[in-house]
Amino acid sequence: MKKQIRCAVLGLGRLGYWHAENLATKIKGATLQCVADPFAGQAEKVARELDAKQWTRDPNEVFENSNIDAVIIATPTSTHADMIQKAAKNGKHIFVEKPLTNDVKEADEVIRIIQENQVLCQVGFMRRFDPAYVEAKRRVLAGDIGTPIYFKGVSRDPGSPPAEFIKNSGGIFFDMSIHDYDVARFLLGAEVTTVSAHGNVLVNSFMEEFHDVDQSLTYITFDSGAAADVEASRNAFYGYDIRGEIMGTEGTIVIGSLRYHDVQVLNKNGSTHDIVPAFPERFNNAYQLEMAHFIDCLRKNEAPAVTAIDGKIALEIAAAAKKSFETGQKVHLHSIGSMV
Amino acid sequence: MKKQIRCAVLGLGRLGYWHAENLATKIKGATLQCVADPFAGQAEKVARELDAKQWTRDPNEVFENSNIDAVIIATPTSTHADMIQKAAKNGKHIFVEKPLTNDVKEADEVIRIIQENQVLCQVGFMRRFDPAYVEAKRRVLAGDIGTPIYFKGVSRDPGSPPAEFIKNSGGIFFDMSIHDYDVARFLLGAEVTTVSAHGNVLVNSFMEEFHDVDQSLTYITFDSGAAADVEASRNAFYGYDIRGEIMGTEGTIVIGSLRYHDVQVLNKNGSTHDIVPAFPERFNNAYQLEMAHFIDCLRKNEAPAVTAIDGKIALEIAAAAKKSFETGQKVHLHSIGSMV
Amino acid sequence: MKKQIRCAVLGLGRLGYWHAENLATKIKGATLQCVADPFAGQAEKVARELDAKQWTRDPNEVFENSNIDAVIIATPTSTHADMIQKAAKNGKHIFVEKPLTNDVKEADEVIRIIQENQVLCQVGFMRRFDPAYVEAKRRVLAGDIGTPIYFKGVSRDPGSPPAEFIKNSGGIFFDMSIHDYDVARFLLGAEVTTVSAHGNVLVNSFMEEFHDVDQSLTYITFDSGAAADVEASRNAFYGYDIRGEIMGTEGTIVIGSLRYHDVQVLNKNGSTHDIVPAFPERFNNAYQLEMAHFIDCLRKNEAPAVTAIDGKIALEIAAAAKKSFETGQKVHLHSIGSMV
Amino acid sequence: MKKQIRCAVLGLGRLGYWHAENLATKIKGATLQCVADPFAGQAEKVARELDAKQWTRDPNEVFENSNIDAVIIATPTSTHADMIQKAAKNGKHIFVEKPLTNDVKEADEVIRIIQENQVLCQVGFMRRFDPAYVEAKRRVLAGDIGTPIYFKGVSRDPGSPPAEFIKNSGGIFFDMSIHDYDVARFLLGAEVTTVSAHGNVLVNSFMEEFHDVDQSLTYITFDSGAAADVEASRNAFYGYDIRGEIMGTEGTIVIGSLRYHDVQVLNKNGSTHDIVPAFPERFNNAYQLEMAHFIDCLRKNEAPAVTAIDGKIALEIAAAAKKSFETGQKVHLHSIGSMV
Repeated sequence: MKKQIRCAVLGLGRLGYWHAENLATKIKGATLQCVADPFAGQAEKVARELDAKQWTRDPNEVFENSNIDAVIIATPTSTHADMIQKAAKNGKHIFVEKPLTNDVKEADEVIRIIQENQVLCQVGFMRRFDPAYVEAKRRVLAGDIGTPIYFKGVSRDPGSPPAEFIKNSGGIFFDMSIHDYDVARFLLGAEVTTVSAHGNVLVNSFMEEFHDVDQSLTYITFDSGAAADVEASRNAFYGYDIRGEIMGTEGTIVIGSLRYHDVQVLNKNGSTHDIVPAFPERFNNAYQLEMAHFIDCLRKNEAPAVTAIDGKIALEIAAAAKKSFETGQKVHLHSIGSMV
Repeated sequence: MKKQIRCAVLGLGRLGYWHAENLATKIKGATLQCVADPFAGQAEKVARELDAKQWTRDPNEVFENSNIDAVIIATPTSTHADMIQKAAKNGKHIFVEKPLTNDVKEADEVIRIIQENQVLCQVGFMRRFDPAYVEAKRRVLAGDIGTPIYFKGVSRDPGSPPAEFIKNSGGIFFDMSIHDYDVARFLLGAEVTTVSAHGNVLVNSFMEEFHDVDQSLTYITFDSGAAADVEASRNAFYGYDIRGEIMGTEGTIVIGSLRYHDVQVLNKNGSTHDIVPAFPERFNNAYQLEMAHFIDCLRKNEAPAVTAIDGKIALEIAAAAKKSFETGQKVHLHSIGSMV
Repeated sequence: MKKQIRCAVLGLGRLGYWHAENLATKIKGATLQCVADPFAGQAEKVARELDAKQWTRDPNEVFENSNIDAVIIATPTSTHADMIQKAAKNGKHIFVEKPLTNDVKEADEVIRIIQENQVLCQVGFMRRFDPAYVEAKRRVLAGDIGTPIYFKGVSRDPGSPPAEFIKNSGGIFFDMSIHDYDVARFLLGAEVTTVSAHGNVLVNSFMEEFHDVDQSLTYITFDSGAAADVEASRNAFYGYDIRGEIMGTEGTIVIGSLRYHDVQVLNKNGSTHDIVPAFPERFNNAYQLEMAHFIDCLRKNEAPAVTAIDGKIALEIAAAAKKSFETGQKVHLHSIGSMV
Repeated sequence: MKKQIRCAVLGLGRLGYWHAENLATKIKGATLQCVADPFAGQAEKVARELDAKQWTRDPNEVFENSNIDAVIIATPTSTHADMIQKAAKNGKHIFVEKPLTNDVKEADEVIRIIQENQVLCQVGFMRRFDPAYVEAKRRVLAGDIGTPIYFKGVSRDPGSPPAEFIKNSGGIFFDMSIHDYDVARFLLGAEVTTVSAHGNVLVNSFMEEFHDVDQSLTYITFDSGAAADVEASRNAFYGYDIRGEIMGTEGTIVIGSLRYHDVQVLNKNGSTHDIVPAFPERFNNAYQLEMAHFIDCLRKNEAPAVTAIDGKIALEIAAAAKKSFETGQKVHLHSIGSMV
């Protein structure tokens, strides 16, 4: 086993910073070698704070740096394909934030280059590392609910991001529901056959300009005979609300809890506990665990549990949902680009 | 106020028996005057057990009986329209189990006759009287969640009824989801504009013969701008699972609990509570409260909170869901018969 | 089986009224024959409202009335012994509110007379009929937690009654903890050997005048080797809080829930459900079920599940608790009057 | 602020190892300089695994080592006083596991030497750093429940440690309840005046030999007028069960949850979630947070939130509980050694 994996983080927004921090302080076997960000000062500041050995404003310096084993790509989605290709061609292993890209054909090309260059690639579907989802999967495999027949997912944000973000987000199916599409495949152990999607603007009228909605529902069928529904919402003004459920022929598993602190206050207003405010609090462990898994795979030279192919399939489902939403028709998945 | 409302119960299956028992033992202001059932012995047996003054195998004897003020119709749905018309023409007030009828046009005719004969009619949507739904509605009206924007309903039976029942049930949208359609209108305070429905046979392959499914999902939009999704399932092998949620612009209300006894057993298997096994345990109070409301309305000569018109509108939504399911198209509600 | 048990309710305060109402409207096999209360107008008013056949201000009229089979004694505790003796000597069966009396010797005499006159007597420990406690007992007997070793009880009132009530209440051990003493015996299936009690005035300083406290703790040992602790409080300003737990060698059973409506409101303040406000809401079913049991026993001429002897033993435990609280010493139960 | 605190861990049993691991991998600002353990091989093995710069079998080497700023004492309690004194005299700052010592007089001497040598000392009451207890304290200070009047604590181990451990543990009051004694002071913001304690062997008869019990109850009064009860048990065969509650004049705060994974399995056996198995799972975060606090205090040269004086006061309460248990009398705290 390699002693230390020397990592570079590309893009130091909120997620990129966390990945860098986790690598610097919490992930055994990893060294934060370099951080890169185009904004003046950001890379230097983060490098100093996290004791990174190098920093740069130019990602190309990272790809050409022979002291770097792996890159963490947390740049805007539109740059992912380019970043991945350069990394792969330079023999760097890759951790890339979801979604893999915004385009199914591009994803095919990206996967081809990854395979050609024999680098490892993990996509940032962190829910697969959340202890609750992991335990649910373990119980499904243990047969606790018989054969899985239905997945029910709810993902609600505590309000909408600003118009600027929505404009470039790819829409609610690509930006939010893609997590549940991946989890549904993971928990049902099956592949999608058809997708039907609905949605409406319930609160944020500015979204109409971008042909996006703030609340959507996707109905999905699988090749195993199972089905699923996935709700996404930008309107959970009470907190960050992630629910999952996997029904089987002998029972059901309900995943998650909105409770933040394990404290209940009982007074004249009733019994109250606080609610998880946002995704960092909900998936704090999962971000750390996914990165530990990535580093562990690199040290053992094993394929990660969530690959670029998983990234591409989730993308196909989101593309099908978007098409169904736009046309009002059920979409068969084989009609969306090529299946892997 | 009239001292006692003399009631007759038509149809002494499980639900009819409960209504008779509630009238005989728990509803102040009501007298169980007569019970009627075509099966030899059933009416006589129930009359003896519940101290009903009269019994008969022929419903016509009930309609012609001048000692009867109100009839409770718990006979098969296919007979509802005939029963209601005869009752109305004889000046009897009417409590009729859901669904009002199986046909929207028939429902229009039934409503016309009820209005012509100036009798009161209540439809058996008992969830409107369940303390949890009532409290949810109270909180919505109190403004606790701002403006309602989304309803989410789940209704799951702990297994499928036998083929014989499914064959005559009208299908999952008419038999199960109709309760959630009514509750969605009640909690959102709005009327349906469009319906899209999906469904599959996940477990009970015998249903294919009847063009029915054992798990369905309906997506609904409302004239207020709100939306809803409604899941129905025959596959909850763990118990009877009724969930409701009403989202608003400032919060959400989650309705119901699967817990049966208020007891938790903690042992080496974990912490376990038992689950509501079936609808009598879940809606025991609601059945009693809806009947108390009906009797109270008759004594005060006031219109009940859930009328034949509510029964007809729920029927229209179910018909739209069935049509959407069959055609794969979104159905606009005005295309389903005449709106009231 | 006797067709109808003709009952008289003595004392029409809050509890007496409920018993009368339950008998009049909800208990099959019972007739509310008579209601009695010394306050002018109260008996007449209740008789009219509940269709009781007779009313009186003089309890002696009840004892001498040959049309009465059973009396429900809901008068002040200080009158219980006298009422029970007169009832027993006149051959009336007896339901008496807890505590049986305020004095252990008096209790012995009362039991002697009940036995001499061969009437049945039930004491109003309604928790034994609460579905949660019943289910807990069923699970204990089913061996779900192995051998019972510890009982933990909490009973909290949502504030103190007025000084006038506290003055005549017998103190917190007789008035509140007596329920938990009875439940501990019921769930552990064992008899008390020693009692140690503590308590303080935490909020209501007026209690000092009456040598009473508003929060107490009793530690109890049993002849089976089990132990228990019982907290009582007048200071639960958030609601009515009744908790029970029975630990065994293989697990534990937690009894009860503070949740009132099955509704949760999630908003910017967190997730809130309302709390049971007071004992009528918590034990509504239990009051009805204990009375149904009493009537059922009378019709079958069987001994009730909670007899005067249970009433006396609970009294002995309360007396021991009071003595321990006053002396600061552990009290052995055999030192309190005679054991049955 | 000092850049890095160079730490040595003394005693590499389970707790010592965790502290070493946390220092090596998770605590910013700390360096794991040295590990020490008398067992051949243990120190060397841990040093290699955690990249400690030095290891030794002799603690004196640590005290004399000028490259060490702070020691973490996780050796048997009987050695604490000696270790603390040597550390203090050599100018090392001290983190010491609870209990501070087993003897109140010894504790006084220890505190004197700490103060004389002006080193900082933190005692390992990790519950004060558990997010739930911290949030409870925050809400108490925010006035959410009015004035605190009662603390209720339950600490249950999932079975008894072996006889060898019990023999040297100091007994249930010193080994288990001491955590709740400290938390009661923390949450009530008050000091103990009197202690009464009870206990019995309910399951583990071998404890009788050591005059210890496997289930105890302590009743405590405070100088603020508040009171508390604290249960400790070795008999929670279902899991590790830590409960806390702080009642106030306007409400109550319930602390903690037995739920381990945020997953519920619903099947024919009911709805089940798993239970926290043992203290590492329950207080994982708290161990890390207390160490981060200690390092942070050293870097800022500030007194820690939980000092040797807190350690001594908890010891006095435990000593009073033991004396009360042995004598059957309420013990006034000023009678136990000298108060600080």
